[in-house]
Amino acid sequence: MTVLHRLLVAITPPWWSRYRLEFVGNDIIAGLIVALMLIPQGLAYATLAGMPPQYGLYASLLPVVFYALLGSSSVMSVGPVAITSLLSASALTPLALADSNEYVLAAALLAFLSGAFLLAAGLLRLGALAQLLSHPVVTGFITGAAILIIISQLKPLLGVSASGDNTLVVVIHLVAALPQTNLLAASIGVTGLFLLLFSRKNTVPLLLRAGVSPNLARTLQRLVPMLLLLSGAALVFVGKWQDDLQVIGALPSGIPSFALPELHADWFQELWFPALIIGLLGFVESISIAQSFAQQKREPLDANAELRALGAANIGSALAGGFPVTGGFSRTLVNAEAGAHSPLSGVFSAGFVLLALWFATELFAFLPITLLAATIISAAIQLVNASAFTHAWRYDRAEGGAMLGTALGVILFGVEVGIGTGVALSIITLVWRTSRPHIAIVGRVPDTEHFRNVARHQVVTDPRVLMIRIDESLFFGNAESVYAEITLALGRYGKAQHLVLIMSSVSHIDVTALEMLLHLDETLRPQGITLHLAEVKGPVADKLKESALPARLEGEVFLTTYQAFQKLTTTSVQP
Amino acid sequence: MTVLHRLLVAITPPWWSRYRLEFVGNDIIAGLIVALMLIPQGLAYATLAGMPPQYGLYASLLPVVFYALLGSSSVMSVGPVAITSLLSASALTPLALADSNEYVLAAALLAFLSGAFLLAAGLLRLGALAQLLSHPVVTGFITGAAILIIISQLKPLLGVSASGDNTLVVVIHLVAALPQTNLLAASIGVTGLFLLLFSRKNTVPLLLRAGVSPNLARTLQRLVPMLLLLSGAALVFVGKWQDDLQVIGALPSGIPSFALPELHADWFQELWFPALIIGLLGFVESISIAQSFAQQKREPLDANAELRALGAANIGSALAGGFPVTGGFSRTLVNAEAGAHSPLSGVFSAGFVLLALWFATELFAFLPITLLAATIISAAIQLVNASAFTHAWRYDRAEGGAMLGTALGVILFGVEVGIGTGVALSIITLVWRTSRPHIAIVGRVPDTEHFRNVARHQVVTDPRVLMIRIDESLFFGNAESVYAEITLALGRYGKAQHLVLIMSSVSHIDVTALEMLLHLDETLRPQGITLHLAEVKGPVADKLKESALPARLEGEVFLTTYQAFQKLTTTSVQP
Repeated sequence: MTVLHRLLVAITPPWWSRYRLEFVGNDIIAGLIVALMLIPQGLAYATLAGMPPQYGLYASLLPVVFYALLGSSSVMSVGPVAITSLLSASALTPLALADSNEYVLAAALLAFLSGAFLLAAGLLRLGALAQLLSHPVVTGFITGAAILIIISQLKPLLGVSASGDNTLVVVIHLVAALPQTNLLAASIGVTGLFLLLFSRKNTVPLLLRAGVSPNLARTLQRLVPMLLLLSGAALVFVGKWQDDLQVIGALPSGIPSFALPELHADWFQELWFPALIIGLLGFVESISIAQSFAQQKREPLDANAELRALGAANIGSALAGGFPVTGGFSRTLVNAEAGAHSPLSGVFSAGFVLLALWFATELFAFLPITLLAATIISAAIQLVNASAFTHAWRYDRAEGGAMLGTALGVILFGVEVGIGTGVALSIITLVWRTSRPHIAIVGRVPDTEHFRNVARHQVVTDPRVLMIRIDESLFFGNAESVYAEITLALGRYGKAQHLVLIMSSVSHIDVTALEMLLHLDETLRPQGITLHLAEVKGPVADKLKESALPARLEGEVFLTTYQAFQKLTTTSVQP
Repeated sequence: MTVLHRLLVAITPPWWSRYRLEFVGNDIIAGLIVALMLIPQGLAYATLAGMPPQYGLYASLLPVVFYALLGSSSVMSVGPVAITSLLSASALTPLALADSNEYVLAAALLAFLSGAFLLAAGLLRLGALAQLLSHPVVTGFITGAAILIIISQLKPLLGVSASGDNTLVVVIHLVAALPQTNLLAASIGVTGLFLLLFSRKNTVPLLLRAGVSPNLARTLQRLVPMLLLLSGAALVFVGKWQDDLQVIGALPSGIPSFALPELHADWFQELWFPALIIGLLGFVESISIAQSFAQQKREPLDANAELRALGAANIGSALAGGFPVTGGFSRTLVNAEAGAHSPLSGVFSAGFVLLALWFATELFAFLPITLLAATIISAAIQLVNASAFTHAWRYDRAEGGAMLGTALGVILFGVEVGIGTGVALSIITLVWRTSRPHIAIVGRVPDTEHFRNVARHQVVTDPRVLMIRIDESLFFGNAESVYAEITLALGRYGKAQHLVLIMSSVSHIDVTALEMLLHLDETLRPQGITLHLAEVKGPVADKLKESALPARLEGEVFLTTYQAFQKLTTTSVQP
């Protein structure tokens, strides 16, 4: 391999080496289909994020290209999505008025910061970070955010205005404002929403029954949102209703000017934390999509490459003045089903969006806002996951509670409080659970070398040798409880001369627990009880050698429980 | 037992039934010795808390009485201590000027809130809360706080003034102010400090060598601080130096007026969180003292009773206008060594403090502040624990780091940031550790039913049956890593037809991990690999029955690894 060749390999994207020329046709078709979906979604999610609609298209150009260069998933479609748009609106609203010039500039800074965090995390190989959020918390968050989105979009859907500091107030204002419903907007919006919801399950079967080929039927189904928007615009144009309901209005034609966002110090202070949250949640959403498709296609997936690619995608969105983006589930699904072979399909879809920006902006001038709201609501409804809650609740009350708490936190107090509540609940549950470890007094299963819980099995014990199995790693959160449980057990086995702690489930002993063991040894000695350990795992034993324990322990460290039982029962004094 | 008798038992303190009349003499003597120590400490810690000195004595009256009624330790001495005084100053300084009327009122509110939290926690039986702080974090916190205390007391010791937003600035100002040192104050203070430090180790041996009886020698040593303060006051009086250095000045004689603190809404908002922290840290400090003495004396100790007693003690301090209090180590030690038999000794010491307030306040008028600073510094020096850091660091880098981070956080950014850093570091360490669980491919120890790590032992394996032992509970923080490790292992054992996960160390499987297992099963099936479980613990098995796993799992759940190995090696297809 020449140096030039090596250099080319280093700078070409990971999927490039697997690419073949015959894939291009498929990628162009998939790109077109995704673009026809991306345009209505982009316009809609921009309004959800509080941005002028065209910025949803700006945010759909560079991100896909940058993702194609760095990402490891061949079908991922990066762009504006519902959740990050909602998060962006929540971060930007305190800073400036929606649609204002400052708001747009702050949105670009938010995308840039979010991208910078993701890129840095990828370079630092922090891909494992996504593990910090438990599934119930993520599901609860998404459900809560989806409900928030639906509530926020009822206003444009019905053509009413309602505002308030928190969701309850907004809902009350909304109900109070119902008599002011714009009947024209509401009829168009609600009809559109029903068509979208109806088409999702029924378009393909209906077309199949009409004799359309399955592939064409699926493609046509994906064009429903675009067709709906165009028909809505045509309807408004024909009916001359543009003054009777809110329309998008004339969009500036052509491409945006590319520039680094301005860094205001006071904005930075307000936006760095939301940017971190948006980056983290966007990554969690995107990586779980990428994982499920990678498994279907049996492709390798590199979490750190995904972090870098998403980071670059967000910086790309910021360069065009856009807002935060991430991988979107429905678009990725469409991209995969349309036969995309590589991220090149994304580059083609960006090209089609660009063409639309140049030549088709007039098409959207008469587009009624209520139909964008219908598009968003129909997407958000899919995100509400009630069955996940019943499953989690049935399996584990604490986790069901964490999921519900997260969802309610998001709905009632906003996305940041919600996610904070969820993470805190997850960690508290974890500490709580490990703080009350299961410990079992064990005895020998007759005529074997196995030892089992005396409470669950018929086993042989010796009153002089108390054997306790500790079923959890020992750490500061449970050292005290374990000590108390051991003391309790010793109280019940008053004749014990030896205490054997079976460490087969103990993977780690921290400093606090180590001090507890030393202390236990000290208090047992004057009572004539010797402390022994058994089945200490390799890594734990290696570490204990560094501590004061081996020197100070009077008893032995046995390899197996059986050896301890054999030796101690034969050497114990008869009571 | 009559109803009256039962009622009496219910309202008498726990130690009362063990009390005998002959203990009274001992308790009175111990009470006097503790009072002679409590008076200088009370005056000193009040100045550390930013309060007028007499409030240290007010805070030494009701707390001991209330603790005596509710507490379970017979020797605990409750009153002002260095750490909570520092914490109080840090909470109150933003609200009002030290020594001002508002400051004193806010301090009483702080003590009241702290007491209310403790009392509520005790009634809710949250005694296990103390476990949330690991030993390294507590040790790091105390060391950091002690260094902060020493730095803060160098100013009154040298008679200079220096201030600043953070410790580094204070130290720089302090160094810059050194030329303005009040030489008279500094000579008295530094001499006093050396005498205190010297006397701690040398008074008893010197007196013994002089033929004094051991008991008397120990008692005399305890009187050194009081004697030092009185000599200092006498020196200032004789030398007429009261205008040349800072003295306490005339203290109001008599007892304080008892009243509930005023509850200002804005103070409440500022103080509830510091009150919670002060309560928690005070409880951690106090319970660890109580534990060590209870073990020495083989007395039962009830953490929830301690919570209630400390809560009542703080409310008692607040009633007299005092500031937060907790159990003090040195006074408790002196109380125990002086032969105290019950908390009644504390009641007697409160009586002696009351006598001093009535008849001896003039004694303190000429007391130089520099000697109070010397008293505080000599106590704080004992709290600095560098060897604990080396021990922790040698055993575990992460825990040594958490300890150092806590100490540095306290010193550089204040007590609240410090304790927050410590708790966050503990929890991150915990999640991090469990997020990278040890998993081992195991094989059979020849001719036994035991299975051990193939990397550490000579064992028999079958290429068709891959057996993996998971050495940690499965939860959201490690589900992804375990999945990745299993995939990696399957890659190396390409001929595997069966995968057995040995769950002997798995005490809990959360929803995220359960989904991971289901997902693993789904991806293995099309590859012709069957997933089995073995040695699932009772509580885990009980819970799994509630989930979708048993219905969807194609493989079996074996009782022992041996049974799995026997059955699968005989039924596997020859490759």
